[in-house]
Amino acid sequence: MSTLLLNIPDTELHFRTEHDSMGDVQVPAEKYWGAQTERSRNNFKIGPKASMPVEIIEAFAYLKKAAAYANTDLNVLPADKRDLIAMVCDEILHGKLPNEFPLVIWQTGSGTQSNMNLNEVIANRAHVIHGGALGDSKMVIHPNDDVNKSQSSNDTFPTAMHIAAYKILIDMTIPGIEKLRDTLKTKSEAFKDVVKIGRTHLMDATPLTLGQEISGYVSQLDHGLKALRNTLDHLAELALGGSAVGTGMNTPKGYDVKVAEYIAQFTDLPFRTADNKFEALSAHDAIVESHGALKQIAVSLMMIANNIRMLASGPRCGIGELHLPENEPGSSIMPGKINPTQNEAVTMVAAQVMGNDVAITIAGSNGQFQLNVFKPVMAANFLQSARLIGEACTSFDEHCAMGIEPNYGGIKKHLEESLMLVTALNPHIGYENSARIAQKAMKENLSLRESAIGLKLMTSKQFDEWVKPANMVGTL
Amino acid sequence: MSTLLLNIPDTELHFRTEHDSMGDVQVPAEKYWGAQTERSRNNFKIGPKASMPVEIIEAFAYLKKAAAYANTDLNVLPADKRDLIAMVCDEILHGKLPNEFPLVIWQTGSGTQSNMNLNEVIANRAHVIHGGALGDSKMVIHPNDDVNKSQSSNDTFPTAMHIAAYKILIDMTIPGIEKLRDTLKTKSEAFKDVVKIGRTHLMDATPLTLGQEISGYVSQLDHGLKALRNTLDHLAELALGGSAVGTGMNTPKGYDVKVAEYIAQFTDLPFRTADNKFEALSAHDAIVESHGALKQIAVSLMMIANNIRMLASGPRCGIGELHLPENEPGSSIMPGKINPTQNEAVTMVAAQVMGNDVAITIAGSNGQFQLNVFKPVMAANFLQSARLIGEACTSFDEHCAMGIEPNYGGIKKHLEESLMLVTALNPHIGYENSARIAQKAMKENLSLRESAIGLKLMTSKQFDEWVKPANMVGTL
Amino acid sequence: MSTLLLNIPDTELHFRTEHDSMGDVQVPAEKYWGAQTERSRNNFKIGPKASMPVEIIEAFAYLKKAAAYANTDLNVLPADKRDLIAMVCDEILHGKLPNEFPLVIWQTGSGTQSNMNLNEVIANRAHVIHGGALGDSKMVIHPNDDVNKSQSSNDTFPTAMHIAAYKILIDMTIPGIEKLRDTLKTKSEAFKDVVKIGRTHLMDATPLTLGQEISGYVSQLDHGLKALRNTLDHLAELALGGSAVGTGMNTPKGYDVKVAEYIAQFTDLPFRTADNKFEALSAHDAIVESHGALKQIAVSLMMIANNIRMLASGPRCGIGELHLPENEPGSSIMPGKINPTQNEAVTMVAAQVMGNDVAITIAGSNGQFQLNVFKPVMAANFLQSARLIGEACTSFDEHCAMGIEPNYGGIKKHLEESLMLVTALNPHIGYENSARIAQKAMKENLSLRESAIGLKLMTSKQFDEWVKPANMVGTL
Amino acid sequence: MSTLLLNIPDTELHFRTEHDSMGDVQVPAEKYWGAQTERSRNNFKIGPKASMPVEIIEAFAYLKKAAAYANTDLNVLPADKRDLIAMVCDEILHGKLPNEFPLVIWQTGSGTQSNMNLNEVIANRAHVIHGGALGDSKMVIHPNDDVNKSQSSNDTFPTAMHIAAYKILIDMTIPGIEKLRDTLKTKSEAFKDVVKIGRTHLMDATPLTLGQEISGYVSQLDHGLKALRNTLDHLAELALGGSAVGTGMNTPKGYDVKVAEYIAQFTDLPFRTADNKFEALSAHDAIVESHGALKQIAVSLMMIANNIRMLASGPRCGIGELHLPENEPGSSIMPGKINPTQNEAVTMVAAQVMGNDVAITIAGSNGQFQLNVFKPVMAANFLQSARLIGEACTSFDEHCAMGIEPNYGGIKKHLEESLMLVTALNPHIGYENSARIAQKAMKENLSLRESAIGLKLMTSKQFDEWVKPANMVGTL
Repeated sequence: MSTLLLNIPDTELHFRTEHDSMGDVQVPAEKYWGAQTERSRNNFKIGPKASMPVEIIEAFAYLKKAAAYANTDLNVLPADKRDLIAMVCDEILHGKLPNEFPLVIWQTGSGTQSNMNLNEVIANRAHVIHGGALGDSKMVIHPNDDVNKSQSSNDTFPTAMHIAAYKILIDMTIPGIEKLRDTLKTKSEAFKDVVKIGRTHLMDATPLTLGQEISGYVSQLDHGLKALRNTLDHLAELALGGSAVGTGMNTPKGYDVKVAEYIAQFTDLPFRTADNKFEALSAHDAIVESHGALKQIAVSLMMIANNIRMLASGPRCGIGELHLPENEPGSSIMPGKINPTQNEAVTMVAAQVMGNDVAITIAGSNGQFQLNVFKPVMAANFLQSARLIGEACTSFDEHCAMGIEPNYGGIKKHLEESLMLVTALNPHIGYENSARIAQKAMKENLSLRESAIGLKLMTSKQFDEWVKPANMVGTL
Repeated sequence: MSTLLLNIPDTELHFRTEHDSMGDVQVPAEKYWGAQTERSRNNFKIGPKASMPVEIIEAFAYLKKAAAYANTDLNVLPADKRDLIAMVCDEILHGKLPNEFPLVIWQTGSGTQSNMNLNEVIANRAHVIHGGALGDSKMVIHPNDDVNKSQSSNDTFPTAMHIAAYKILIDMTIPGIEKLRDTLKTKSEAFKDVVKIGRTHLMDATPLTLGQEISGYVSQLDHGLKALRNTLDHLAELALGGSAVGTGMNTPKGYDVKVAEYIAQFTDLPFRTADNKFEALSAHDAIVESHGALKQIAVSLMMIANNIRMLASGPRCGIGELHLPENEPGSSIMPGKINPTQNEAVTMVAAQVMGNDVAITIAGSNGQFQLNVFKPVMAANFLQSARLIGEACTSFDEHCAMGIEPNYGGIKKHLEESLMLVTALNPHIGYENSARIAQKAMKENLSLRESAIGLKLMTSKQFDEWVKPANMVGTL
Repeated sequence: MSTLLLNIPDTELHFRTEHDSMGDVQVPAEKYWGAQTERSRNNFKIGPKASMPVEIIEAFAYLKKAAAYANTDLNVLPADKRDLIAMVCDEILHGKLPNEFPLVIWQTGSGTQSNMNLNEVIANRAHVIHGGALGDSKMVIHPNDDVNKSQSSNDTFPTAMHIAAYKILIDMTIPGIEKLRDTLKTKSEAFKDVVKIGRTHLMDATPLTLGQEISGYVSQLDHGLKALRNTLDHLAELALGGSAVGTGMNTPKGYDVKVAEYIAQFTDLPFRTADNKFEALSAHDAIVESHGALKQIAVSLMMIANNIRMLASGPRCGIGELHLPENEPGSSIMPGKINPTQNEAVTMVAAQVMGNDVAITIAGSNGQFQLNVFKPVMAANFLQSARLIGEACTSFDEHCAMGIEPNYGGIKKHLEESLMLVTALNPHIGYENSARIAQKAMKENLSLRESAIGLKLMTSKQFDEWVKPANMVGTL
Repeated sequence: MSTLLLNIPDTELHFRTEHDSMGDVQVPAEKYWGAQTERSRNNFKIGPKASMPVEIIEAFAYLKKAAAYANTDLNVLPADKRDLIAMVCDEILHGKLPNEFPLVIWQTGSGTQSNMNLNEVIANRAHVIHGGALGDSKMVIHPNDDVNKSQSSNDTFPTAMHIAAYKILIDMTIPGIEKLRDTLKTKSEAFKDVVKIGRTHLMDATPLTLGQEISGYVSQLDHGLKALRNTLDHLAELALGGSAVGTGMNTPKGYDVKVAEYIAQFTDLPFRTADNKFEALSAHDAIVESHGALKQIAVSLMMIANNIRMLASGPRCGIGELHLPENEPGSSIMPGKINPTQNEAVTMVAAQVMGNDVAITIAGSNGQFQLNVFKPVMAANFLQSARLIGEACTSFDEHCAMGIEPNYGGIKKHLEESLMLVTALNPHIGYENSARIAQKAMKENLSLRESAIGLKLMTSKQFDEWVKPANMVGTL
């Protein structure tokens, strides 16, 4: 999606020369990135700049730091290099290098170029921290030999995907859903005695309480949260240590287990090394699986937000059984026109997540041989969905759900007008007489009471005694 | 989808021996099919038997007959063989061989086995018509050398797909949509003076007429029909003549043009040979394109059917502005509960078509080298969508749309109660005074008239003169 | 999808008169169904006849029997009626009434008409078993009062959905996947020492073993099975007892728990009553959730089947590293052309399941107030996916996976030709010299060995000693 | 998707007070936006800031200017106000107010808040241009009464959607596709005599030329472009003039036609007023239709890019029939590893567009009564797809397609090794003898020539004379 502006101008005035195995590349003089990042920046002008999700950049920072620690523990990296690398990783995690990651989603499908972006920035920044200057011919840290040691793009990018995905679910998605779930639970209890008409097929049906109605939404979110948590175990598996094709070539013994432990320690999340690294590189079923749960939650949210706005429709010409908070002035033409805007944002988010699910499904099914090269698109869609659901639930919770109140007048009116209460008369006057009452009421536009008394089938007192909606809502 | 039963029993008592290049095969003695059909029947027990759509079988009958005619014209097939082949094709087209096509969708992705099923049935049936017996070692017609002459599965199956797709659109889909469109047009004109409240964001808004509201549906279907017709030109292109890989190897000169002409003649549809046969075998973008229009129509139908049932919701506790025909008794509990069941069928069909579109999209994108081997799944989904839309529109038209009537009482009540009519007072007493009227009405649950008079801003007569909803609906 | 024929002819010669609350209906004289079934049969001519999945019919038989037992236990149904009802349910479960369920998927979205189809058939058949005749004015069993006692369409249909869904997963889907998984596991072990070239980005990469490659597929299916089993707990929840809107109105106390216990007993599956009946009627997130896992498995199958066919491509001009079983003769033109037809069926199934997932997602998100009226389309898509995956895995297992063999010649040739083995020389002659060897080999079309010796960087013996692909495949 | 940073800081130090009908709002002192923008900014913290696509902002600038001109022409707006409004619109179109549109996609579904954002910025900026200061109590231009005159959010936002959609298709999407199409056409002609093996089912088949193979891609893109252009007519219809619900209330006579003419003039695109404004507000089938064509093109691109990378796979262990440009160094481990990264970007884009299509489908089907409130999500997905396809085609064209060259060695080797050339011997020695040659070659790993001569069926000279692949590629 477009962004209005970005701090990386199209044209740079000053450049320095960097080179890689294909030759020299002019790189903006002040930037920490190197030749390979610059090549990607020029070869992939697709979509908004710097669209590679920041969560992936941060996840890389965690894993580069963890790899450095594991490498040092296993005696393949000196401790001083480890510390320099870790220092830059921490800077990235603290948001201190925001303009150094200019690459886009729509690059190589392995994410190699973003891996190199991290390697180059970390190496160059470490060199500067160590007292060097950008462009020095001798570097204290090498992007490939040091920062990328015991790693391949093919195992780092999927690792970054899992770190970013797990983290955003824990930090943003689940808390957002839980907040909304808790508010709805509170509302369900608060309105447990508000008897109202039920509706099936959009048509009037037997009554239930408003609390019962809302309890269904709570149950949906509870099931959704459970389904989402069920997927975390697969996301906890990390590809790192699989190296180029899953065999772990060029990694020291014990490295895969150790690096996962460091990632778990740094992120405080229960990551572990994947049992099967071949799957971990060539398939991203864990992302498919977890996004499937996000899609399920989107289904629930679409249903919940849509129902709440239908119940609140009106104020005079709709269902009008709920009052929603009035957040913004409505139309300049008509006073009192307040729109269910939070519901609209939530249902739009739900539609997006459902679409993202298809993008992820297609991408996930296209692994070829030892590598799936749809990684960035899978990551971007997953992270967008996870963020949108979390933030939309929070927004909906704060600006709508917490303020939901019954419109007692509307609820009472519908309950009284409904012909379906006639059902309560069956035990007293039989189904056929009840039907006569309902049919007469319908045809002559009467209330049930008027019709019953008009047919001389009972007294007004009897009617009141027998027709008690509160007795029709059960105890479920 | 499951079918309850089928006239092809699992176990046959009598068999005859047929053979092909891989050896002998036992085939049910009475069946016209041969060895290759039987192999497929045994190797692909996936989904309900005989699920290959009958429209594909019939399309093959057209093309086999057309190929025979073209071959004879071009002197590669004797006229008597042509006539025998054509005779069996006509039998198939008249439904006289209903139990001879037992294969499933989920076979080889080129549909080769269904092509052979046709070749074998036509050859064997021709042999019997000619006086021979099943199982004779000498055959008057050879499945490959005669029936399949100048053809390959790779160009026949996509040709059958286009014939079947084009034909069902013309025979069933478009007429169904047109019927519904015409009924809605009639309703739109009939109700052109029924002023009613408008609703945006599900909230009360300025008025329009019921005719205007329905005219939007008509316009959607008109656009949908136009979009669908735009796709016919691509569907009119036939792959036949491309042979195995698109080069036309083993076909006589001029065959591709001629065979398309015969197909056009036999089907009375404007088919022509595809300009590019390589695309026609390896990609089925025409199916993707045309189903895209079906999906657009599904979007319209979902919207239309959903809005009509929302407008008809009630009878007492919903919007209640439309009466729909009462087709079936509702609940055994509650008299008067009639459900918008036709709308439900239509919206379910819409959901199915949207899902089918994704299946077709994925299948269509997977052409590999000279062949796309997702042909049967594309055909099956397309034909299901085309049939369902056509039949659902017809059903909805006959059992719902034709009987739609305004609920004048409900419409009038909402129009009068709506606070938004205050807008009409702006020119007379100013926006601010109008707002005061609306706000007082809202807060004290008054009508606009009561509020206006209560505020001494006008007389009752003035109110009647100024607030005329019929003047607010424009002329669009 | 179309079916070629069905034992229910369009025109019946003999009719009897049945009636319901809307009047008389002519019903085919020999059929057990009644007025409401016949109305639906006439009002919903959409798609192939009798398309309501047989699994739903059978699930209804389980639940009607269970409801009868629970009702008798709770003293609201005499034991002799229970036994008659149960007897007919058993007949249905034994396939003895195959022609009595003519309704389609595309009916009312609550499935009410199929519920009534069951009620009518059970009541009429019970009456006949009891010695009565079809059309008798007095019936021993009443469709609504007896067969449907303590039930509503609104809680029976979702219950039938869960029974049918859970059952097919256990009976067909999971066993099919497990069979394939086990075969692949066996192959993975059998080929654990077959060293071959790896491929990333479709380009040559470092080696792995064929066993390792296949182990990735096994891991995918293991994860898929786990994900699918994770969804069973939600599917185990039954709506029955919720009645019309979820409140349980008109059901005896304790009925919901008891009826679920009977269903669990009759099906031998761990069903239990849903904690929240309001969700169970208005949302079908359990179906969404479980189909999400089916879609994940479809993603895996698409990837696995596609990779196996790419590895087997050739025989001379492709990758050619695997031999697949030769099931059917290929082209009539070219001997030796055997196509990976089982893979094609599997990948077509995968595309279908991905499409079905979208249909289910859309349908599932459209619950309105107390009812979701997209039940039949959700059921049909779920059951199709579950059946197709189970049967496609079985078919692929038996006709392809079990017969997969390495093409040792092709594997060896690629391994020897690959330039990437140069990596093994890095420790001995340095990266730069290694690069020279590879570049010379590439440019002059030499083998690595030829290039290395040509550059005088090592002896032939050294090359053999240093370049051992088997040492490059790690131990993961 | 996340963006790394944005020029709008979370915390502002200086504020001024603005107010609207709901009270006072603190607004960042230097910003031109007003109270309603600020409310939205605070109430919708969902997804990245300022995510409302810039193309929508620009489209609004066109339409606000056009509305001002039409209003002045129709005597409802003084010319000096028109000129002030137009001046700010031009500033926006020249990118001079980049930091004034902070709102997100996930706001109200009508896009009202972005409409007000434009109204407020234009009014305040005009006031400053006119010599006033932000925060002045008297304003020369009023956001609603002047900038929004004769407009409603409900008709402006869909108008902006059509302007933005049409414009990006013309400016970016179609030119990108055309460039790629033209390059492929050139390649198709350049390689028209390069005979190569064909492949169906991934298995060796009869030959074709590389030019023929690529011509299929050209044909796909030609059909896709045609399909896309077919949708422009629907997109050309503008909702503007429909006002709040489609009736045109509060717009001067002739306004709808005139404003469309101005928009056509300012954008130089053939816009016209929509025939039916009710559809134009409540449904966005034009967006659905047009995105359907984008999805079709995505299907083609997925197929084309995937096939090109499969043909280029290798260099030693794949198909190896094409050389692609070498844009970036591949693995640090292996020299010569160049990956088809442009193809990867294109196929990822294709997956995204397919997912976006589902989001748009769902959103488009959810119009309720007089308004569809999924407008921003539809706009954002459409614009993303249109941009990505255009830019990915351009990138793929420049960095891959233009540099595609045949690997003549690989092509020749496959052609010679293929057993399928045996087909050419049928006319000379019969099918059966030909089959013997092929089978012997297969079994004993011989060339066809070796096998033919070994069987003494022909001389070497005869073989050369009869087996000429160039004669097998037809003239199609």
